Amino acid sequence: MTARFISLEGGEGVGKSTQARRLAEALRGAGREVVLTREPGGSAGAEAIRMLLLEGAGDRWSARAEALLFAAARADHVLRTIRPALERGAWVICDRFLDSSRAYQGVAGGLGDAAIGDLHVFGSQGFLPDRTLVLDLPDREAAARAEARDAGAPDRIGARDAGFHRAVVDAFRRFAAEEPARVRLVDASGAEEAVTARLLAAIADL
Amino acid sequence: MTARFISLEGGEGVGKSTQARRLAEALRGAGREVVLTREPGGSAGAEAIRMLLLEGAGDRWSARAEALLFAAARADHVLRTIRPALERGAWVICDRFLDSSRAYQGVAGGLGDAAIGDLHVFGSQGFLPDRTLVLDLPDREAAARAEARDAGAPDRIGARDAGFHRAVVDAFRRFAAEEPARVRLVDASGAEEAVTARLLAAIADL
Repeated sequence: MTARFISLEGGEGVGKSTQARRLAEALRGAGREVVLTREPGGSAGAEAIRMLLLEGAGDRWSARAEALLFAAARADHVLRTIRPALERGAWVICDRFLDSSRAYQGVAGGLGDAAIGDLHVFGSQGFLPDRTLVLDLPDREAAARAEARDAGAPDRIGARDAGFHRAVVDAFRRFAAEEPARVRLVDASGAEEAVTARLLAAIADL
Repeated sequence: MTARFISLEGGEGVGKSTQARRLAEALRGAGREVVLTREPGGSAGAEAIRMLLLEGAGDRWSARAEALLFAAARADHVLRTIRPALERGAWVICDRFLDSSRAYQGVAGGLGDAAIGDLHVFGSQGFLPDRTLVLDLPDREAAARAEARDAGAPDRIGARDAGFHRAVVDAFRRFAAEEPARVRLVDASGAEEAVTARLLAAIADL
């Protein structure tokens, strides 16, 4: 059984973490070994970097320092967690990966997609998922969910303004249009069970 | 009075920290405002990254993750500490800067000088010191000093083997040969006072 690397992407409040868990459970139910992981984090070193990235004031890091920290965390995550899991034949489900850096720092943050790609080549040899599933919601629904979830304590990045998050969502939609073989847009509205069924359909060919 | 950015470089045990302090004192004695700083570190964010870099097991980070972390720390240090100091007219004396990344990660670590340069362009717009002073010791004396100092508890990077440190020293000598206008080799042997006098002579034209 071939090992596969699947990333889940999308803006704030679309249900990525819930669906990553549900997708892992469904694949385990089908008899596969699944490693469920997330970014930033997913390995001891990357989790230490995660704390630097998500805590503190909104302007704690410049966009460039932030992009370098994400690339460092991802290099560690790929080397220590993702590649070893794939090498022993497991499936890897990752809650956010490179495309989040492209959308958040590259596009919405203004650093440019090429620069984020260069950092990924340097840190992780340009390693890409076999399939990237972008959870996409009608804009009004996404905003309502994000507001409900983050009303208490959004992290440094979730706390950015609506224009920023709008640019992130647009970027994910563009990535799906540009790389249809790897990146698939999946409707994230409706019941959790229905969304999981759509995700499974979007990886059925794997 | 023109602001100047001076970095001190060299292998382990050549007296960089002592001489950085002495150089700062000498310049202050001449009536200049001096900011004495160091890498990795020198700003709140970069000091947090410093702890990740220097603590833990020797293989805690891959060479690539380590280079990305150094570049992130440097981006923060340049933005928050070095540039503001220069803009208000202060001199900045920095204990290690880019050339340490070039020598340790680029040359001795095998990542290549061009890759380290690219990260520095991304993170810090390729910002360079006005003068880089490489403290250089006869090899036998350098080894004896490093051994005496680190016998108890070398950090992650100081603890690497003799071949690594040999490559670092050779790299610094090559940088001085390749960029004579910026990088000057200074004899670090003899009394502290004598070394400080040589360093001051090597920046007299500034």
